[in-house]
Parts: sequence; C-alpha cells; structure tokens
Amino acid sequence: MGDLERLPVAIVGASGYGGVQLVRLLLEHPLVEIAYLGGSGSVGQTFADLYPHLSHRISLPIEDCEPEAIAQRAKVVFLSLPNGLAANLAPRLLAKGCKVLDLSADYRFRDLNTYEAWYKGEPRRDRDLASKAVYGLPELYHNRIAEADLVGCPGCYPTASLLALLPLLKQGLIDLNSIIIDAKSGTSGGGRQPPKTNLLLAEADSSLSAYGITNHRHTPEIEQICSEVAGHEVLVQFTPHLIPMVRGILATVYARMRDPGLTKDDLRTIYKSFYRSSKWVKISPNGVYPQTKWACGTNLCYIGLEVDPRTGRVIVVSAIDNLMKGQASQALQCLNIMMGWEETTGLPQLAFYP
Amino acid sequence: MGDLERLPVAIVGASGYGGVQLVRLLLEHPLVEIAYLGGSGSVGQTFADLYPHLSHRISLPIEDCEPEAIAQRAKVVFLSLPNGLAANLAPRLLAKGCKVLDLSADYRFRDLNTYEAWYKGEPRRDRDLASKAVYGLPELYHNRIAEADLVGCPGCYPTASLLALLPLLKQGLIDLNSIIIDAKSGTSGGGRQPPKTNLLLAEADSSLSAYGITNHRHTPEIEQICSEVAGHEVLVQFTPHLIPMVRGILATVYARMRDPGLTKDDLRTIYKSFYRSSKWVKISPNGVYPQTKWACGTNLCYIGLEVDPRTGRVIVVSAIDNLMKGQASQALQCLNIMMGWEETTGLPQLAFYP
Amino acid sequence: MGDLERLPVAIVGASGYGGVQLVRLLLEHPLVEIAYLGGSGSVGQTFADLYPHLSHRISLPIEDCEPEAIAQRAKVVFLSLPNGLAANLAPRLLAKGCKVLDLSADYRFRDLNTYEAWYKGEPRRDRDLASKAVYGLPELYHNRIAEADLVGCPGCYPTASLLALLPLLKQGLIDLNSIIIDAKSGTSGGGRQPPKTNLLLAEADSSLSAYGITNHRHTPEIEQICSEVAGHEVLVQFTPHLIPMVRGILATVYARMRDPGLTKDDLRTIYKSFYRSSKWVKISPNGVYPQTKWACGTNLCYIGLEVDPRTGRVIVVSAIDNLMKGQASQALQCLNIMMGWEETTGLPQLAFYP
Amino acid sequence: MGDLERLPVAIVGASGYGGVQLVRLLLEHPLVEIAYLGGSGSVGQTFADLYPHLSHRISLPIEDCEPEAIAQRAKVVFLSLPNGLAANLAPRLLAKGCKVLDLSADYRFRDLNTYEAWYKGEPRRDRDLASKAVYGLPELYHNRIAEADLVGCPGCYPTASLLALLPLLKQGLIDLNSIIIDAKSGTSGGGRQPPKTNLLLAEADSSLSAYGITNHRHTPEIEQICSEVAGHEVLVQFTPHLIPMVRGILATVYARMRDPGLTKDDLRTIYKSFYRSSKWVKISPNGVYPQTKWACGTNLCYIGLEVDPRTGRVIVVSAIDNLMKGQASQALQCLNIMMGWEETTGLPQLAFYP
Repeated sequence: MGDLERLPVAIVGASGYGGVQLVRLLLEHPLVEIAYLGGSGSVGQTFADLYPHLSHRISLPIEDCEPEAIAQRAKVVFLSLPNGLAANLAPRLLAKGCKVLDLSADYRFRDLNTYEAWYKGEPRRDRDLASKAVYGLPELYHNRIAEADLVGCPGCYPTASLLALLPLLKQGLIDLNSIIIDAKSGTSGGGRQPPKTNLLLAEADSSLSAYGITNHRHTPEIEQICSEVAGHEVLVQFTPHLIPMVRGILATVYARMRDPGLTKDDLRTIYKSFYRSSKWVKISPNGVYPQTKWACGTNLCYIGLEVDPRTGRVIVVSAIDNLMKGQASQALQCLNIMMGWEETTGLPQLAFYP
Repeated sequence: MGDLERLPVAIVGASGYGGVQLVRLLLEHPLVEIAYLGGSGSVGQTFADLYPHLSHRISLPIEDCEPEAIAQRAKVVFLSLPNGLAANLAPRLLAKGCKVLDLSADYRFRDLNTYEAWYKGEPRRDRDLASKAVYGLPELYHNRIAEADLVGCPGCYPTASLLALLPLLKQGLIDLNSIIIDAKSGTSGGGRQPPKTNLLLAEADSSLSAYGITNHRHTPEIEQICSEVAGHEVLVQFTPHLIPMVRGILATVYARMRDPGLTKDDLRTIYKSFYRSSKWVKISPNGVYPQTKWACGTNLCYIGLEVDPRTGRVIVVSAIDNLMKGQASQALQCLNIMMGWEETTGLPQLAFYP
Repeated sequence: MGDLERLPVAIVGASGYGGVQLVRLLLEHPLVEIAYLGGSGSVGQTFADLYPHLSHRISLPIEDCEPEAIAQRAKVVFLSLPNGLAANLAPRLLAKGCKVLDLSADYRFRDLNTYEAWYKGEPRRDRDLASKAVYGLPELYHNRIAEADLVGCPGCYPTASLLALLPLLKQGLIDLNSIIIDAKSGTSGGGRQPPKTNLLLAEADSSLSAYGITNHRHTPEIEQICSEVAGHEVLVQFTPHLIPMVRGILATVYARMRDPGLTKDDLRTIYKSFYRSSKWVKISPNGVYPQTKWACGTNLCYIGLEVDPRTGRVIVVSAIDNLMKGQASQALQCLNIMMGWEETTGLPQLAFYP
Repeated sequence: MGDLERLPVAIVGASGYGGVQLVRLLLEHPLVEIAYLGGSGSVGQTFADLYPHLSHRISLPIEDCEPEAIAQRAKVVFLSLPNGLAANLAPRLLAKGCKVLDLSADYRFRDLNTYEAWYKGEPRRDRDLASKAVYGLPELYHNRIAEADLVGCPGCYPTASLLALLPLLKQGLIDLNSIIIDAKSGTSGGGRQPPKTNLLLAEADSSLSAYGITNHRHTPEIEQICSEVAGHEVLVQFTPHLIPMVRGILATVYARMRDPGLTKDDLRTIYKSFYRSSKWVKISPNGVYPQTKWACGTNLCYIGLEVDPRTGRVIVVSAIDNLMKGQASQALQCLNIMMGWEETTGLPQLAFYP
C-alpha cells in the first residue's frame, strides 16, 4: 500500500505530550499519514523545533487550527487540547465530514450537567452531540466505537481504574458503596506547557504526595461508567498521587466482596473470561503484581489480583502507561476500530525493560 | 558538659541503613558518645570503610557482638539487626544492666503468638520479656517509655499509619471495619545488605508497584496498637508500594465516619488537640497535603486531613522519613525520654528543600 | 515469509539486561525466531519467570549452554555472558557452523595481549580466532561485518565515544594526544545479577560519581580503534561516571584542533559527510545538544558539535541508549548486515518522549 | 545569649531556592535572627504559604525590597536575586551601614568589563564598589572576607571547580592551557520561578545532556580566580551538564602535569597541606572518589585525586551540594568570618545517607 493511499490524519494540539505520542505512533502506523499539525502558542515553529529528536522523520510546521483547512487535508482529526476547546472545534469538523477523536474531557460525559458541575467554564451548547459521542474504552464499547464519528477518549486515571473494576461490576461481585481507588501517576500527566512549579524535577523528584483528594475531575468520569456497567449509581473514593517518575499509572483498587467465599482463583477466572477477547489486558499470574514499567511505551494494561479472606475485600492492581493506553495509543486503538482495521495495527506491544 | 560525662552508647548492626542514621544522629547529639559499633559481615572493617563520607568524624572499627564487651563499654544499646536476632541479645544485655532499644520486630508484640504467626522462625523463649517491652511510639506511650528498660521501636509503616489513625480511634470516630491503609515507601526501607535485585536502580527507578498485598508483616503490628487504642479488635487492610525514591513514606488512610456530619474543621481540631503536646506531629492547613520530602532528614510527621461528604469517609495522609521518624530518630526520641532529657535533644527539626 | 522460514537464533545469557533486550528485539524482528535461550543460574526457570511482562509472547525455558544442542536448533548465536566465557563457547559453535555475535569483551581485541593486560584471567588460547573476529561497529566496519562469522560487539562506552571521535580522527583534525572522554552512563550498564550494593536505588539515586578513573577496561578498546583509524597510536583519557537513571550514555569528548580556524559549520559538514550512509547517526542542528532520552529504546546515536575559538578545542557530545546501540540493537544491526538484510530491519527508530 | 542579642539579618529574594536554604540555615544558627524577608512576585504572602513545611518555625511575610526599611531592621543583608538586581540595592544598603552578602553574579568580578561582556544588560555604574567587593570563597580569601562589607558569593560551578583546581595552580603543577572542567549539576540550580520547561521532571528525569558548551557564564568567573592564583592568564574549558537529580555538583577536572613524575601520593600530600586549615574540604583516601550525595545538605566539599602516568594528566573530582557550599551555606560561612564568629557556627557538617 503506497503512501498515497494512506489515511490522512490531523493532530490538533501537537506540541504537548499527547501530541508528541500521537506523532510518534502515527509515524510508525502502516495505514495512516500525518497531514496536519495544529497548535496555538507554537504556530510558526516546525515540529522539529519542539522535538528535535524527531527531526529526521517529520518536518511539518505547526499551523493554526482552522477547521476548513484541516478538513481539506485530513479525514480523521485527533484533538489533544486543554479541556473546553474541543467543544468548539469538533462540531465544525464533524460537519465537514471528519471523524474526530477527542483526548480532552469534553466528550466523555453523556450528561453535560455532570461535566459543567465538575469542569466549570461556560455552559455547553452541544448537548446533542455530547450525548451521541462514544466513550473510547474499547474493552467495554468496542462495537459502539466501530460505529462512531466522535469518540471521547478516556482520561488516564479512568482507564486504569475502570479496567481494574469492570469485571467486578459486571458480575455484581462487590458492594457498590465500598470502592476505593488509590491511584499513582508519573508527572507527565501534568503536561508540558505552561510549566508548573510543582512539576519541576527539583520539586517532584525524591518526593511523593496526594492531590485532589475528594474532588479530582476524573471521579465523575469513573462513576459514570461504573454506574452504567453496574446498573446502579456508584460513588467511588478516588485519590490520585504524584510519583517521582515520568510515565505510568498504578491504580490500587479496594472493594468489599459480596460473597466472602470468593477465591483468588475464582477471580482470575472471571477476569480472564471478561477480557478473553481483549488483546491489551493481561492478567498477572498468582502472586505477581504488575510494575508500571512493564506497560511503558505500550498499549497494554497489566492487572494483578488478590483476595483478603481476613477482611473480605478484593484488591486489584492495574498498571498502564498514562500517555499510551491512558491517552494516545488508546485513541489510536479506537481509530483502528473505527476504520475496521485490525485492532492491534501500529500499536506497541512490548515494553523495553529495565 | 565534657565528653567524659556523655552517655556511652553502642550500636549493634551499625553497617546498615538504620545503623548509619544512628551514627549520624548520635555524632550530633550533645549528651551521648558512640562507644561501640557492632556488626557481623563487616567485622574488622572500620565504619569509615563502609561510609567514607563520615571518616572525618568517626574512626571506630566494627566489632563482634559480644554482650559482655558491649555492656562494659556502653550503658545503652541500639539493636539494628534483622528480625530474630535481638531476641538472643537483648536478654543478656538487660541482665548486665544496659538499656536496650531494638529497631527490629522482635519486641513490638505483646503477644508472641502473633509474632510467631507472621514472622515464622523458631519459637521464642522470651515471652515474659516481650510482654514487658514498651512499644516505642512516644506520641502514644510517652510515660511507659520513660520507665522502660527495653523498647521495641515501631516499624516504618506502622509509625506513619498509626500517627494518621490514632485520633480517629481514640475518639471513636470511625467504623472499625472500614480502615484501609494504602502506603508508599522509598526503597531504602529494603536495606543495603545483601543487595536485592528488585531494589536495583535499574529495576526500581521510573516504576511503581504494590507488594505484600494482604500479608505484609507490618499488618499485625498496626492492628495490635489500633485494637488497644480502640478497645476492640481492629483488622486493617494494609497495602505497601515501592516508590522510585530513596527515602520517605506516605500513608493514605481511608475510613468510614460514624457521624457523617463531621467536618474537615472538626477533624483538624480533634487532631490538633490529640497532638497538642507532641512536638513532632504537624497538622497541615486546610487544603494542604504533605509531601514526603518535607519530613526528609527529620523526626517530623506531617498530617493532612480531608472529609468526603459524598462518600462519608475521612481520608488522612501522613508523611514521614522512613529511616528517621520511621526508624532511627524515633529510637533516639525514645532514648531522650528514657533518660529524662528534653524530648527534642539532638533531633533534626527542619528539612532542606527542595 | 512464514514462521517456518525465519532464521532460528539462540541467545546465551538471556537472563541479563543484554539478554532481555535481545529477546524483546528479536520477538519483533520479522525475519528471525528465537529458538533457544541459554543461561546458568536461571536454568530450569522459564523466561517468563524472570520477566513476567513478556509472558504473553514467549514461553521458552532457560536451558543449559550446550554447544551441541544450540547448534542443532539455531543458525546464529548471540552470546551475552560475563567476560571470559565466550572464549570457550564461540570456537565450538563456529565449528558447528553457527555464526556468533559476542556481546562480551572476548572478541573485541585483535591483539589478545591487550585483552590479557586489562582483563586479567587465564591466558587465552584462541589467538587466531580473535584476530579474525570483526569489531561490530557498522558505521566503521560495515563490509567486514558482512563477511564475518564471528563479531565482537563493541562496549557501550566505546560505541558512544568512537562515533563521536571517528570523523575527527579520519580527517586528521585533532592533536592525537589531546583526547579526553568524559562519559556518563545510567546504572543498567552494571547488570542485574548478582546485584551490587552501589547499584541499589537507595545508593545510586539522587547522586553522582566518577569511577574507574584512569583504568576502566573500555579504555584500550577505544584506543585500539582510534589508533587504527588515525594510523598512529592514540592514548585517550577516559573517565566514566554513574548517573542516577536507568538507561543512556552521554560521552562528552574534548580534543585540541590542529587547525584553529576550523568552524562549527565546517565540522558539521565533515560529520554529515562521514555519516552520510549511516542511518543511525544523527547530527544535531547548530546549538542543539542531544539528550540521552532521545535515543532511549532505539538504535540511534545523536551527536552535537561545538568549537571553542577561545581555547582551540572541539567538543563533541554523543548520546546513545547503552543497552541498545551500546549493546543489543547494535548486535542486531550487525546480524542484519551479516545476513544481507536491510540494515534497519526490526530496529526501533523512534524514541518515545518524554 | 538571648534572642534579643542575636544579629538581625534580612534575606532579599527569600522565595527562591537560595532563599529557602538561607531561611532554613539561619533558623538553626545560634547567633542570628531573621528580621526581614524580601521578595517581588510573592509580596503579600507569608513564607509559610510558599514553603508550608516550615510554617511551624517561621511566620514572617514577604515584604517589598525597600532599602530604608531593610536597614532599619537588619544589620546584614543576604541578596538572593536574579543577576543585575543586586547592583541597585547593594550600594544603598551599604550606605545605610548594612553588610551585604550577594549571591548573584553582580559582585563576583573585579573588572566589570568582563561582567558586562558575559552577562549583557545595562552598563554598570558601580565600578568602584565592585572592585572593592570580596569574592566569597573562604578557602582562598578568608582574611579579605573578614574585613569585607560587601561579599560577592561564588557561583555553584566555580566553587566546585576552584576547590578542585586551587592547589594545582598555587603550586604551579599544571600546564595552564590544559584545564578542562566537565561539570555536572542537579536541576535545582535552575531555580524555582518562573518554571522552565526543560527543568520539568517529565523532561529532565531519566535523561542527561550538556548545555552552555563554550559559553556558560561561570567560565569567566572561574578564569578570573584561576588567573589571580596562577599569576598568569588562564583560559578554561568549562562544560556543564544537567543531571536527573535535585541537588549536587560534581566537577571532573583534567589538566596536564608539568612534572610527569608526580604521583598520586604527592598530590594527596599537596592537597592536604593546602587545605589543612580548611574545615570544609575533605580529601578522599586513595582510590575513593566522592559521591555528590556525601555533601548533600552540608557545607562540605569532598575531593578525589588521581594521576594517570600513561597520559601525564591529573584528574580531580570535587563534590558539593550546589545549594549549600555552592550557594547558601557558603554565604553563611562568609558571614561567620565577617562577624568574627567560629567559622563552623550553625553550618551542617554531616550528610544523611543514603
């Protein structure tokens, strides 16, 4: 298949960490070509000015975000912008026939009241569109994604948390009021521009802290999907932590089992069954707990399982790369599904170690 | 006060990380002098061979652990040995009139059945002695420590966890079956000798994982003290994690409130009151959560508090230096109390930042 | 091309960091299959026991290193063993018709007197073989590698150092007595087994030191190649440093220019010309100096250039991944050349960032 | 001595990393009290707002930098401001009778032409004052510092570099054209405000690069002092590198020996003799090279020595804490000398390890 036949795609918000992952992934994807890089502060620079190590592979400039121009050059658009901006661009891109994958929070909520309550900002006028957008978690919504024109790609924490929780919720195994998600993330989740004091190496290295306790914006996103899968409203206790490393999320999930006789082996069987057709979720052997590094640079999610007969709780540990399965490669996984391609096309499957 | 009048102390197990903290602290303590350094694998070397950066301040050799010899030279002995060894040495040192502070798990349990169930090894023959040893958490047992000849110094995780939990338990504020402790530690807690593969920088850096889920040995230690304070048996869910940094523990503690109307301000008042005479516990202002780095190199514990009215839970975050308040400086705090000295003597109070 | 037609290869010494890179790379290489994993301490375990994150892709056991058995199953053998062991295995494997790529120092020296002087150990009996082995630096010895049956793959520091120095030496631009190489490496270069105290995260993190000053074993290896290229004997000052990170080498190379009028632009022209047919060496733009992270997980070497008219020196900075271009992926690059395949086949070309 | 008799000091520029070190050190110094904290962007906040972990020890606000007000409250002023600002404040503070210790580059140069050539900015009008300022390196200028009213405190790199070089220069042991300083620093040297992209943990962690090759501003500062000590003009090759850690500088210094027969033992004798009255410089034993971590949080400089008979060079490695001996604690050392106090008063002498 020649380059002329490749699918032309645009990345809007290419200068950030989400953008540079997408550029890297799409450069290696056999069926697409990058046709357009959009930005704001970096317009006029080339991508190689921002990321010199990729200069031998890409020489595109960063351009203004004009939906007209984008739609003329690209059939699919990845939006990797701060929250609130996709809501302006997506409707116009869709109207011009583009498919849109949005990596912000704008199209993750079926009910925009929830979005507005947690994200503040101006009232949204695209309620219809938002209600039709598909939540881009392929392990749960593969078929809907295949039909979608607009995908709201999940947040990094929700991806790790939901993959750990879904089999429990689907099978009705846990007390819905007992879910606690203690999540830990590398600092790349905080983005590149504008730089923030607390993300300086001098501040964040050799240290550890919680943040956003009780009010992190990924809470309602997790709850929305949990509630849908459980068939009841679910509230979760979600606490994120900043870890002195670049990449990776580990979610340690606690819940009380409804049947205290459930064993670790039962649990492994249930998880393996739930994810039997999911190529990107790996259930660890008995007694093995995943390291975030295993998933680094890949689209994989590793899950470890434990049951505590003393306390009647299940503990599930899930590890992903926050910028990959938690962001860019998951969006590409969705694209593969939307285009009817093999779901694994162009997606890294093996981490380097150590 | 001249050097001749200083209290002569011995450190047995001086070559490890606990030992080198003690050496560093005792060199700066105005009322003690180091009279004896004991070890096993490093006997014959000087302390400066092991830690060249201290060679300008200490030139003692590492000697065999002979209780006779130790008792002739020292009035107080710090035991910083692998679990199971103090049980042999402590009785003989006490018999010769030494006071003993043990940094291992050997004397942390009033009921040695619990110790034997979790630590395995040979049956203990020092049940009487163990039952009289005082648990060296000064914020809880100040008066008992003042009278003690044998102190079982707390583990690092229990120190962080208990300081976060004590006011809740004392005041009966939480459902005793709801306690979850998600703890995170730097890798120095794993010790120096023999080196372990999973603690190599190449393995542990840029990564994160849980370990010892449901069965870490610090669990029964936490439960013993919680149960005593609460007046009922308490089981806790304790999950430790290995963090890519050298020092520091953060314990994120979750529990369900018995009175859902309790506010964050109430909680702060209760904690400040509980710790009003404790110089080493600092309650963070509203909305501020501690970083482990704040406590680094000090005997301090910083505590942050949050209440979630949505879920009815309290979330407490405590930060300590695992090798200081979690180990060596807490032992020195106990010594100060045992000797009737000002509790803060010789203990570092201010971290460097960043 | 089906799996049956893939080239069967063996990795001896698969459990170390060199081995796991090779496994990872070969699993993704379209023209080979892994037919044999050999080890010593880990015999009887599966590779997945050692590296659980790869268990979904490889289930081979670690087997004893029997040349007979290896040669029956593999046509090419990668030896990734401690120095001194390949000298026993390689002759027997070659005798049975295997091609051998050795990642140790055993076949890097044409003159084994030099090897014996710097590496000690027993006298070598394979002088003829050693003199015929090809030094596996494709940017210099492409044609010889294409003809070789036995390749002595370069050390990590020599790879970074030589790629920085070769154009200067080839063109006779520098005073041969003036070369200083100040090199910095991540700790993965120190290996996994047996774990060493100074490579523990608790020791090596947040710190920095030099080691092996004046006597590191990579010195004569660098000098051998420099001397051959320069046509005169060259002595270099080589100083390695241990950096608190997992992967990456940066070599900062200083030399006095013979023509003080040489400019930065001249230099860039010379380097670009020298490396015009080398796909893996990238010369940075004016004023841009490479980060090691750019090369991470790839076979690339990035080079930055500077001229100091004040002092008459050239300063060259080269960045590689010590485990890839400095070890495993360079060996695979050699294999591609030996087999007549496209030199870039199966080799990672783009790092993830950040 | 009661608090009323303590020397009142001001810190102008208290919000940065230099400021917070000074605050920490001065809080523990037995003879001073902090009377004034000045800033610009943070005026109106308290110091505890900026650094909550110190809130139990200091409650001063950050105030505007009014020389009048400062001089009324303080007898000594530490200026910890960006380059170019001290030149405005110092003359006015001195005129009001304050002693001034400036941590910027403004008063490090006797000849302001050099300053203006390397630092750009507006022409300076305080040439007389600058020529009388004393360079605050106590190991070299102890007596001048004792008499000074205005001290220009050395840069971090110059401190490490000069302490490594001084004995060689003083004794005329090296070829003055042969000096190469390959220096490595943690990222805290880049400051806290405004945060810079390249200092984000996500950018700087797990990576390594050189910067400012041939043109870093610390070059002329090093050359000025080297030239004065050598009695001839000295040009040095200075290359700084950014290391993925918070604190610490390692300078690896190379020079060609004038007498190739000089031995390592000779060198150690010369260094020990040169620094015999310097309490803060420690010469490592034979074969031991310092780690930066040894100096962390102290005013110490550790020096390791090596001679290479093959190349005729000496290699000296020096390790300091860039924010302490490289900045704040060295300023305090100067204050001790200026006030006639014991030079070690209030200065940390022992690092924690690991």
